[in-house]
Amino acid sequence: MNPAIAQSTLTEQICAAIRSVVGSGPVPLHEPRFAGNEWVYLKECLDSSYVSSVGKFVDRFEADLAAFTGAKHVVAVVNGTAALQVALGLAGVQRQDEVLIPALTFVATANAVVYCGAIPHFVDSEERTLGLDPHVLRDYLRSSTDIRGGQCINRQSGRVIRALVPMHTFGHPVDIEGVLGVARDFHLNLVEDAAESLGSTIQGRHTGTFGLMGTLSFNGNKTITTGGGGALLTGNSELARHAKHLTTTAKVPHRWEYVHDEIGYNYRLPNINAALGCAQLEQLSGLLEAKRRIFGSYQTAFARVPHVHMVEEPYGCRSNYWLQTLLLDESVEGQRDAVLTATNDQGLMTRPAWTLLHRLTAYRTCPKMALPVAESLERRLINLPSSAHLGAEQSRPS
Amino acid sequence: MNPAIAQSTLTEQICAAIRSVVGSGPVPLHEPRFAGNEWVYLKECLDSSYVSSVGKFVDRFEADLAAFTGAKHVVAVVNGTAALQVALGLAGVQRQDEVLIPALTFVATANAVVYCGAIPHFVDSEERTLGLDPHVLRDYLRSSTDIRGGQCINRQSGRVIRALVPMHTFGHPVDIEGVLGVARDFHLNLVEDAAESLGSTIQGRHTGTFGLMGTLSFNGNKTITTGGGGALLTGNSELARHAKHLTTTAKVPHRWEYVHDEIGYNYRLPNINAALGCAQLEQLSGLLEAKRRIFGSYQTAFARVPHVHMVEEPYGCRSNYWLQTLLLDESVEGQRDAVLTATNDQGLMTRPAWTLLHRLTAYRTCPKMALPVAESLERRLINLPSSAHLGAEQSRPS
Repeated sequence: MNPAIAQSTLTEQICAAIRSVVGSGPVPLHEPRFAGNEWVYLKECLDSSYVSSVGKFVDRFEADLAAFTGAKHVVAVVNGTAALQVALGLAGVQRQDEVLIPALTFVATANAVVYCGAIPHFVDSEERTLGLDPHVLRDYLRSSTDIRGGQCINRQSGRVIRALVPMHTFGHPVDIEGVLGVARDFHLNLVEDAAESLGSTIQGRHTGTFGLMGTLSFNGNKTITTGGGGALLTGNSELARHAKHLTTTAKVPHRWEYVHDEIGYNYRLPNINAALGCAQLEQLSGLLEAKRRIFGSYQTAFARVPHVHMVEEPYGCRSNYWLQTLLLDESVEGQRDAVLTATNDQGLMTRPAWTLLHRLTAYRTCPKMALPVAESLERRLINLPSSAHLGAEQSRPS
Repeated sequence: MNPAIAQSTLTEQICAAIRSVVGSGPVPLHEPRFAGNEWVYLKECLDSSYVSSVGKFVDRFEADLAAFTGAKHVVAVVNGTAALQVALGLAGVQRQDEVLIPALTFVATANAVVYCGAIPHFVDSEERTLGLDPHVLRDYLRSSTDIRGGQCINRQSGRVIRALVPMHTFGHPVDIEGVLGVARDFHLNLVEDAAESLGSTIQGRHTGTFGLMGTLSFNGNKTITTGGGGALLTGNSELARHAKHLTTTAKVPHRWEYVHDEIGYNYRLPNINAALGCAQLEQLSGLLEAKRRIFGSYQTAFARVPHVHMVEEPYGCRSNYWLQTLLLDESVEGQRDAVLTATNDQGLMTRPAWTLLHRLTAYRTCPKMALPVAESLERRLINLPSSAHLGAEQSRPS
């Protein structure tokens, strides 16, 4: 077989499979839809003149998120990066500490570590979950760290490895049981980056609620959006109190005095963004069902295409299927860019995995383990158009 | 005269003077009003589904702000603190540098310095402008610093003093000519914290446009609000490009690749907040007129009250009169708390100056000059209810 023809054929087959799910015309990777009470709540916000950091929608959004996720406490903030920065600080991450994070994640995970003055330390992924692999991590830590005085010390750098931050990639839950075991055995504080996994559960329990703290994002490309926004989840009431204090400039409550008892942040979610969030959250179960239907449609469509498969939720987990993910077999990984080009050329927005963080200039010198699986995933992974309305029952393309 | 009676009398006179301006009932310190196109633009935002960091209102808000302020470039961000942090970084502020800021400012000014890893160095104020005093600062720097290799070195700490951040207090412009001279003579990069002074000008030129960069805030308590938001102003196109890059996670533009070429921030203003800002900005000149009328009303009312006076815009400047400010004479400064208690007890929200930053636990050990004027202002200053609608022609209380 002529390889040029073979390549063209795989690309064409992939385009056709996507089209069979999303219909014709230009299709973005992910866009929100505002089909509920967004309008009503925004108007209420304006009419009350409470649009900023005080107002009933912020409190309600926090309460609604707590009810949905089962987290005991929720603190709403300006975005997921801010949530992670504050969570890491509260997890004791200090200047010159190291923090274990996957190499395969959005850059914000690493940036939040740096904002704390700490150093990201990159961990490999497993193909089954796309998230960090607790088994290879355990072997790696066993061979490269010492436990001294109840702290995990990187033998090479001499620095304390303070925290472990798994990320639930594209909504697929990480192997949390394995991760919890590693955190416990190596004295690492566990903070879950659940920016992408609102609605994803493990044995019925919501992602982001297993660690000391978890963080969510409501950026415009997420399952639900507040324009820009995020939240911190925790079961610990003292951490929750402290998080809220830090994210509201650490001002000590007083009728008129302006005393700030530590260095805080201007990170509170504005009420107007929370209003949007409340309306979006009311629609979340419908959105999750729609996203599950899109996955089913893609899986059916790609069953006929050789050398590729859709990433499915791990066993025992329920994924929110935030971004639908196609994996090329190694034998055809060289065709990734051709597929990306062809799809984007015809208005089908697809994208590869993020450039692995250890390749970025700013993170090139950070400590890392061998990353063969993350590197393989990077070569083979393609996210497909995933907006929930593509799976809405009334608008499914024939 | 019995001092208890005298005290009660001054407090009563102040309450009566405030009531004569604001009318009856509870009156907040400052609240926004949404009387323009807020509703229309928010709806447009929802209908377009662009609520997040991409969308036409962000671009338009930047263009409208540039037109209003005369700044060549404007970069909209999530809040004023973020704007100041980014501006300081771009002004070359590095870890262990010192940055000169007034002791009399909101804590965010100092926090932004700390986020850059630098150390605030506190400067005294002048009573005329409430802002930092360039004359005493010049004497202080002359006696306590050396210029070496084109850098200003703090003789005591040995650290570089990299930047100077005046703040236009409650909207009253600082003595910018004096400040510019000090910055030039001592090799300090000038970043103006104009968080409170949108609409305030010096010889017709907008505050925030004199330094290398300036920053604005659109928090809920400001003259106009975006819920939460801020902006960076600069006349330098390279700095503007870099600021926008840094505030959008430093992602290198590409159809699908995720490459970030430095450590950036998730600081872009969401489109939905920018939509609010566009509508608010259309009403700004009316708001400024109303605030000027409130000042006039307060000035008339307080002309009859002994031992107090309203702070007036400095000569040659136009203040936005963001927060109306009453100053007690030194002879009655001991009555400040009685006035604050009495006014707040009857629902008239007043507040003192911020606790001077060198008194806060986190900043207690920072370098500082003698601060006699700031300390005197702290003992004597009271902000009065200042919402623009209190000065609206149609709703002025009789």
